[in-house]
Amino acid sequence: MPGLSEFELIDALLKPLAEKSGGAFSLSDDAALLPDPPSGYGHVVTKDALAVGIHMRADDPPGDMARKALRVNLSDLAAMGAHPVGFFMALCLGPETDETYLRYFVEGLSGDIETFNVPLMGGDIIRQQGPFTISITAIGAVPKDDLLRRSGAQPGDALWVSGTIGDGTLGLLVADGQGPKLSEADKSELIKRYRIPEPRLALGIGLVGIANACIDVSDGLVSDVGHLCAASSVGCSIAAPSVPLSPAADEALKIDFELMPSVLTGGDDYELAFAAPKQAEKDIKDLSTEVGIPATRIGFFEAGEGLSVMDRAGKAMNFTSAGYRHA
Amino acid sequence: MPGLSEFELIDALLKPLAEKSGGAFSLSDDAALLPDPPSGYGHVVTKDALAVGIHMRADDPPGDMARKALRVNLSDLAAMGAHPVGFFMALCLGPETDETYLRYFVEGLSGDIETFNVPLMGGDIIRQQGPFTISITAIGAVPKDDLLRRSGAQPGDALWVSGTIGDGTLGLLVADGQGPKLSEADKSELIKRYRIPEPRLALGIGLVGIANACIDVSDGLVSDVGHLCAASSVGCSIAAPSVPLSPAADEALKIDFELMPSVLTGGDDYELAFAAPKQAEKDIKDLSTEVGIPATRIGFFEAGEGLSVMDRAGKAMNFTSAGYRHA
Repeated sequence: MPGLSEFELIDALLKPLAEKSGGAFSLSDDAALLPDPPSGYGHVVTKDALAVGIHMRADDPPGDMARKALRVNLSDLAAMGAHPVGFFMALCLGPETDETYLRYFVEGLSGDIETFNVPLMGGDIIRQQGPFTISITAIGAVPKDDLLRRSGAQPGDALWVSGTIGDGTLGLLVADGQGPKLSEADKSELIKRYRIPEPRLALGIGLVGIANACIDVSDGLVSDVGHLCAASSVGCSIAAPSVPLSPAADEALKIDFELMPSVLTGGDDYELAFAAPKQAEKDIKDLSTEVGIPATRIGFFEAGEGLSVMDRAGKAMNFTSAGYRHA
Repeated sequence: MPGLSEFELIDALLKPLAEKSGGAFSLSDDAALLPDPPSGYGHVVTKDALAVGIHMRADDPPGDMARKALRVNLSDLAAMGAHPVGFFMALCLGPETDETYLRYFVEGLSGDIETFNVPLMGGDIIRQQGPFTISITAIGAVPKDDLLRRSGAQPGDALWVSGTIGDGTLGLLVADGQGPKLSEADKSELIKRYRIPEPRLALGIGLVGIANACIDVSDGLVSDVGHLCAASSVGCSIAAPSVPLSPAADEALKIDFELMPSVLTGGDDYELAFAAPKQAEKDIKDLSTEVGIPATRIGFFEAGEGLSVMDRAGKAMNFTSAGYRHA
C-alpha cells in the first residue's frame, strides 16, 4: 500500500478507536493495562482469526468484515457469560488491502465499538503477500466461580437455543448465488445474518446461575451441541421440528426441504446453545423476554454419549457431515 | 493440508501445550479464564503478528519461528516490567504449511513454554491462501501503579540499553547471503540473534521502581528511542561509540564501517532501552549483575525534543531512514 507505513496506519486509523480506554495508553506503549475486574470477577480471554476467502467472502463490505470479526469473538464471551472489557486486533494486510478499504473497515468497527461499548486496547498491522486476515483477542469479565462452561450439562437437562438456526449457512449459499429462489427481502435478510452475526451477550450474562453449560453455535448446531455433550460426558437428543427458524429460512425449506441437513449442520449462526434444568424454564422465559432474545427448547440431555436428531416422524436423521467445517 | 482438520490439529498439537494452565480448560471451551493477579498487580496485554517473508525468512527453521513469535511478545511484556502469565496464538496456515512443518513449529514452541514458564491458554488455527502467519497475544502481571511506560523519561536521565545492538539486522543481512565476509562462527551467532531473540524479562521486572521509562528495541535503536522521547516529551542524545556491540557485530564493523547506520537503525534486537536517573547507576549495575544481562549507558535525555546521535568525533550523524521498518 503506497503512502502510509504500518505505524502511520495505526496512528491514523486505530488510535481513535482506543480513545475511551485509559489502559490502552493511546496504543503508544508496548502493552495495555486491563482494568481491574469487579470483586468476585475474573478475566476471560478468547481469540479467533478470520481470513477473506474462508470466513468472509471477498466481496463482503469491509465494514461488515470488521463487525463480523469482532462479533464472533464477542459471541465466545457471551457463551461464557462474560461482560466485554476490550479487544486487541492484528490486521494482516494483503497486497490489495488499500487505505480506502481500511477506512471502510474502521468505520464498521467503530460503529460496533459504540454498540457493544468495547474499546480497542491494542493492535498490530502487518503486510503479507496473502489474503486480508484479521485476528482478534477479546477480553471479558465474568463471576469467576460461576462462569458458563461447555461442561456441566446433566442428564435430564433441557437443551435450548437462542434466536434462529441455519440463517448463516443459508446466507452464504445465497451470497454465492446458489440455493432456492427467494424474495429479495428474504435473500438480503439471510446474507445479513451471514455477514453480521448478533452476539447474544445479554442472554449469556443473564444465564449465569441459570444454565448448567453453554456454547456458541459457530461450527453448526449438530457439531457444537456435540462439543457440549463431549465436554459434559452426556448424550443429547434434538427434535428437528423444534429447531427455531427465521421466516426466510422457513421459506427456503418450504421451497427445498433437502436443505434441512445444511440448516442443522451449517455454521456461522453465533447463537447460544445451552443446558438448563427443567425447573429453570420460567427463569429462561423471563430472561428471554427481558433481554429481547428468543430462546427455544429443542431437546434434552440424557445419560450416555452422542447426539441424535429426530425428524418429524421421530426417526433418527443421519448427516453425511458431522458438522460444517470451514474449507 | 490433507489428513487433519483444524479441530484435530488443535487437539493433537496445541492442547498438550496448554496442560499446565487450569484456566485454559484444555483449549476445549469458548474462552480461557486468567488466573487472578497477585494483590496490587494488574494484567497487561500485548499483541504482535509475524508473517513468513516479512518478519521471518521462508527458510528459517519452523521451531525458531515459533520461538521468535512468542519471544517478541514476551519482549513487550519485559518492556512493561511484567511477569509472563500466559499467551494465546492464532496460526494462519498457508497452502504449504504441512503437518511435519507444524510439528517442528510446536516442538520449538514447547521448549520456550518450558523456558519461560508461560502456558498456551487459547488458540485458533485457520487456513488461507497466503504465507504462514502467527498472531500471538501475551498476558503479563505487573504492579499496576508502578509499571514501566514509554512516557516518564526526565531531562537529565541517562539512557541505557541491555545486551548488544545491531545483531538482529546484521543477522538478517548475513542470512540473506549479504554483508561482510565473517567467520562461520560469527555468522551463525548473528543469524541466531535474528532468529531467536532473547526477551529481557528479568531485567524489565527488576527495573520496576528504578527506571523512569522503558521500551523494547524492536524497530531499531534510533526509532525506538525516538518513540521514548516522543512519549516522554523530551529530547535525547546518544553517543554512538558507547553503543554496545557483540564480538560478531564488532568484527562486521571492522570490515565495513559503513554498516554503522544499519546497526543503529536496524530492527529485531529485542533489547530494552530505558531511562533512569543518574543516581540509579549503582542499582542498575547491581541488577544487571544479578540477572546476568549487561546494561550499558549510551546517552542522556534533555529538555526539548528529538534524538541526536553523535559519532566518534562528537558530530551529529544523519540517517537516511528514521529507523528500520519491516517491508
